[in-house]
Amino acid sequence: MAVLGSGSWGTTFAKVLADAAPDTDVMLWSRRPEVAEEISVHHRNSRYLGDTLLPGNVSASAVIDAVLADSDLVVLAVPAQTLRAQLPAWRPLIPPHAVVVSLMKGLEVGTDARMSEVIAEELALPPERIAVLSGPNLAMEIAREEPTASVVACPDHDTATWIAAACTASYFRPYTSTDVIGVEIGGIVKNVIALAVGICEGRRMGDNTKASVITRGLAETTRLAVALGGRPETMAGLAGMGDLIATCSSALSRNHTAGHLLGQGLTLDQVTVRMNQTAEGIKSAQAVLDSATKLGVDMPITASVVAVLQGRLSVNDLGPRLLARNLKPEGDHAP
Amino acid sequence: MAVLGSGSWGTTFAKVLADAAPDTDVMLWSRRPEVAEEISVHHRNSRYLGDTLLPGNVSASAVIDAVLADSDLVVLAVPAQTLRAQLPAWRPLIPPHAVVVSLMKGLEVGTDARMSEVIAEELALPPERIAVLSGPNLAMEIAREEPTASVVACPDHDTATWIAAACTASYFRPYTSTDVIGVEIGGIVKNVIALAVGICEGRRMGDNTKASVITRGLAETTRLAVALGGRPETMAGLAGMGDLIATCSSALSRNHTAGHLLGQGLTLDQVTVRMNQTAEGIKSAQAVLDSATKLGVDMPITASVVAVLQGRLSVNDLGPRLLARNLKPEGDHAP
Repeated sequence: MAVLGSGSWGTTFAKVLADAAPDTDVMLWSRRPEVAEEISVHHRNSRYLGDTLLPGNVSASAVIDAVLADSDLVVLAVPAQTLRAQLPAWRPLIPPHAVVVSLMKGLEVGTDARMSEVIAEELALPPERIAVLSGPNLAMEIAREEPTASVVACPDHDTATWIAAACTASYFRPYTSTDVIGVEIGGIVKNVIALAVGICEGRRMGDNTKASVITRGLAETTRLAVALGGRPETMAGLAGMGDLIATCSSALSRNHTAGHLLGQGLTLDQVTVRMNQTAEGIKSAQAVLDSATKLGVDMPITASVVAVLQGRLSVNDLGPRLLARNLKPEGDHAP
Repeated sequence: MAVLGSGSWGTTFAKVLADAAPDTDVMLWSRRPEVAEEISVHHRNSRYLGDTLLPGNVSASAVIDAVLADSDLVVLAVPAQTLRAQLPAWRPLIPPHAVVVSLMKGLEVGTDARMSEVIAEELALPPERIAVLSGPNLAMEIAREEPTASVVACPDHDTATWIAAACTASYFRPYTSTDVIGVEIGGIVKNVIALAVGICEGRRMGDNTKASVITRGLAETTRLAVALGGRPETMAGLAGMGDLIATCSSALSRNHTAGHLLGQGLTLDQVTVRMNQTAEGIKSAQAVLDSATKLGVDMPITASVVAVLQGRLSVNDLGPRLLARNLKPEGDHAP
């Protein structure tokens, strides 16, 4: 089994696979040889996972050929916006019957493509060999072996079941789905909603406001997912509502933290410097809004977040604007 | 306008009504004359709302006749399990065209009746004169005038709109619905789910677990509401998901706090003593489960909470049991 990308989630997922099958070798690919060496020699990835000890059957290399050789399962966990550029070099190395699983949560800027679509295009794989995994999965909690559930989605149910079995550890329980679109959209838009919730918190708004923004955030996420062909029940499940709540509750979420700093009055540049990276929701927000606009889907929270990121809306006005929409009957179906 | 019950929510809602209509008198009824005097003379209810200053057009009395005289709107905010016993004495005093609004969140022990059903039975009012209000409404945040949204439900849409207008303040925005059942069930079951989430926190489980329990908690709440005649979209809105998230996020929630103490290993009696009262979810849990059993609705989280409250399940086993259900495909509609 191969995991490409040794950030916090890729490394943690390698640990899950290794704990699920102690007799199987799990190989991590890291862009930086020093990270690969730390993982192989010291069984740690200290930059992302602190003192977490990785199982003995996890090793790492910066040489992609060695990592991909003979793998049945290829897990992709690189930054979403860098994926397309890397795939052509990997394509000839992926074994002919391997299944590819995306852990990535982002919409490609410029094309509005989901990661599974980028994979299908660049690797020329049929849909039944591409899966996605998403859920309320804060990596640090999983690395500490706190009980966690997740969702594996693939159009082919047997493939989803096979992947779920391969990553079932005592602390990690995957459920299966065939709704790839819904599972991916849930994982993408929650980062944008987490920015909005973080901004409200940074403005010192309370749990009543936060809960309203999360609730309406899931409603607009569901509208987008359904317009793209996803299923509403996926959005009400772990990969929709579950992931959104975990992200918006946790101090471990980068997007939530980025929103919090914006809400406290920092500029976008200051936030990026302070966090040493750009939160994925900041990159995907415009692509989500573009996608919604093309489909005629109303996403007021996403639109407000984009306006804040572009400097067209003050963080002071975001919360009041979100609550002030003049929707007298709640929901689409109320009379 | 009359508000019967001067606990934290009743008193706060009297402030909302008074701020919404500064020229209208809002009368609070308090069982205890000393509380009524503090409110009328000092414009405070220090036991529940600390230093919060009530508007000048709020006054209070322990004499029910004076409070109900000439009221157009009668708001009920007494403890849920005490309601039925009090209504016969109030019935002849309620003006013939007054509308009655319930703020109460509980299912009557023994009858499994919702509060609007108890009101209809004991006051012999037609459904169009009975409304309920519920949402992500932590009273202390509203008392501090933090922006909050809520839902007013009445089978008669014009009545719901009239009540919503009567309680629209700068910081309080009510939406309307005709789904009384859904709005009430959301407000009742969230207290039981908040106990489960609190127990998981008390056991030091993380945000991944908590988000999964909240997500599955809303799914079982929705199953019950729909079986009783409520609408799924109500459960996806502010009175369902919104209220559940606010309650499960906040340190201000009594049910959440009670669960936390149980999770830390205190007995039910110790929790009741420590909190100086019984959290409503502890009283309603069995009634919710009875209701579900009669209708053939599966509510595994509620059943587990009841088992903990009855001493049949250890708090150590609750979290693992909730995540360990062998539901491979997620949801009812997945293949």
